[in-house]
Amino acid sequence: MPQLRQNLATKEWVIIATERAKRPEDFKAEKSEKKLPEFSPNCPFCPGNEVNTPGETLRITDKNGNWKIRIVPNKFPALDKEAKSFREQNHIFRTAGGYGYHEVLIETPKHNLTTALLPEEEIKNIITSYAGRYREIESDKKIHSAVIFKNHGAGAGTSLEHPHHQIVGMPVVPLQVRSRLEEAQRYYDDTGECVYCRMIEEELKAKERIILENRSFVVFTPFAAFSPFHTWILPKRHHASFRDISDTEIGDMAKALRIFLRKFYFGLNNPDFNYVIRSAPSDGRGLAYFHWYLSIVPRLTKTAGFELGSGMFINVSLPEENARFLRDYKLPAD
Amino acid sequence: MPQLRQNLATKEWVIIATERAKRPEDFKAEKSEKKLPEFSPNCPFCPGNEVNTPGETLRITDKNGNWKIRIVPNKFPALDKEAKSFREQNHIFRTAGGYGYHEVLIETPKHNLTTALLPEEEIKNIITSYAGRYREIESDKKIHSAVIFKNHGAGAGTSLEHPHHQIVGMPVVPLQVRSRLEEAQRYYDDTGECVYCRMIEEELKAKERIILENRSFVVFTPFAAFSPFHTWILPKRHHASFRDISDTEIGDMAKALRIFLRKFYFGLNNPDFNYVIRSAPSDGRGLAYFHWYLSIVPRLTKTAGFELGSGMFINVSLPEENARFLRDYKLPAD
Repeated sequence: MPQLRQNLATKEWVIIATERAKRPEDFKAEKSEKKLPEFSPNCPFCPGNEVNTPGETLRITDKNGNWKIRIVPNKFPALDKEAKSFREQNHIFRTAGGYGYHEVLIETPKHNLTTALLPEEEIKNIITSYAGRYREIESDKKIHSAVIFKNHGAGAGTSLEHPHHQIVGMPVVPLQVRSRLEEAQRYYDDTGECVYCRMIEEELKAKERIILENRSFVVFTPFAAFSPFHTWILPKRHHASFRDISDTEIGDMAKALRIFLRKFYFGLNNPDFNYVIRSAPSDGRGLAYFHWYLSIVPRLTKTAGFELGSGMFINVSLPEENARFLRDYKLPAD
Repeated sequence: MPQLRQNLATKEWVIIATERAKRPEDFKAEKSEKKLPEFSPNCPFCPGNEVNTPGETLRITDKNGNWKIRIVPNKFPALDKEAKSFREQNHIFRTAGGYGYHEVLIETPKHNLTTALLPEEEIKNIITSYAGRYREIESDKKIHSAVIFKNHGAGAGTSLEHPHHQIVGMPVVPLQVRSRLEEAQRYYDDTGECVYCRMIEEELKAKERIILENRSFVVFTPFAAFSPFHTWILPKRHHASFRDISDTEIGDMAKALRIFLRKFYFGLNNPDFNYVIRSAPSDGRGLAYFHWYLSIVPRLTKTAGFELGSGMFINVSLPEENARFLRDYKLPAD
């Protein structure tokens, strides 16, 4: 019989289709191993083509002066620094200026790599870079919230193969973020504690959904995971904003993220996924009730119709089994 | 420059990408006109195969006793009447029984039709059927909310070609529904009026987003439409639940829906879409602040990555232009 589970942090209900549940192995992607070249002459993110992506906002170079990471403006920005910043309401018609940031972090000069295949040091550089840029964008008083996300694979909405992240600074707080804040605040009002801190504690005690853990981070499949292999990476230390990640945490996050992504890459044959860093709005750094985290949403199933209609997700897998699969998966030697 | 718009009913912010905006004509689907047969021997919904869909809960027949519409249980139900109805919480882990209804409304015996191509009388029968079934499902005290939705085309998540709707009765109120209720309640607290009633009034006054209108319904592109040709159909009379649709309204809804779907079908070359009837929870029939409606979400663009990451939708079209396109579109003779 199907079971419903509610994520107490987001208040989202999920149907766990226990009877139709597939085994973790069933989700292995069947990919035609299209071999990508290390350099693609028409790729705007490949070395030598920097002229196609002007206005660089950050660069990390190696000893020889070659870039390892670049952050550049998105060529087709959803929001624009040239737009006016305003709010206006005419009867019920409410508008705001499309002021904001939309940047792209190019993870590596190599066209054919993916985050999972980068050395730990380079993943650390990536996190350092987007933390730096994130802080700068959020220090713009007209920006009310910012996100960092990655779309990996065509099924996750990427149009460019070259490994990259996106950083968006918005002049408003999106409903999705506000909804999470409100739920967390209600939990705090009820109990006097951060629901995410509580979740970490309970998940570490329950053990069965933990994928891995280190000094600063815990990686687990949420109890009410809304899709197969949906994964959360939470810092153990309570802080509401990704802005306040410490250097030690950046190192530990690189370690945790790398192991997770490698298990995911090798264990499930490089599936498409989205990931996003959910953080408090710019003015909410000090919040006692919110806790930043990274959410990974693999694109392994298609449930768009039911979900859009009913407002509920169906997960055709068991979170506990998927967590065990990744926890036990033995990585090939580095 | 991009513009932000907020839907005052849902509080969802949308980026209207004015500069990248496509013209309405650009959204015409390029479909390989795969001709479907009127009868498909392996289709479980085709006449003669009724044995594959047992447990019929509703049937409408013609003068000769042949069925015109059937409602049957979904063969792979997301929720099940055999499941227990319970709520349980163990620390932060909250579960509920997967009790519920998941049924399929087969719109016509003909495999190769689509709602847009049915005569008005048959669309009226469809609405009458799902209103009847909706009322029955919601009268089950264990059901807290119910939805009716349709996925049209593979891009909208359909796996079965034969035209059908789905009806789901749930033992909880999904977050999406609860969020809409809360926003509408806040608006009511502030102003003493239903935000949807107000929207109808303002849209009829502004005219530019109206697609069509009749005695009981208004069909328009919301000011903050979150995707190209996103459309709302609202009853003019205030009532919170679809359960309370009157016979006159059923007739007028069939008229409005049919014209809209035909304009959409012929004008845009039969694009994929989802539609859903959003209604108050079972116990909210009398609510002064909520208003049921039908929302149509065409699948004309792919914005999954940005949207999932940022929590904001990007609409690469102008709601006013799309509304004008459909309003002015001349339908072929019936």
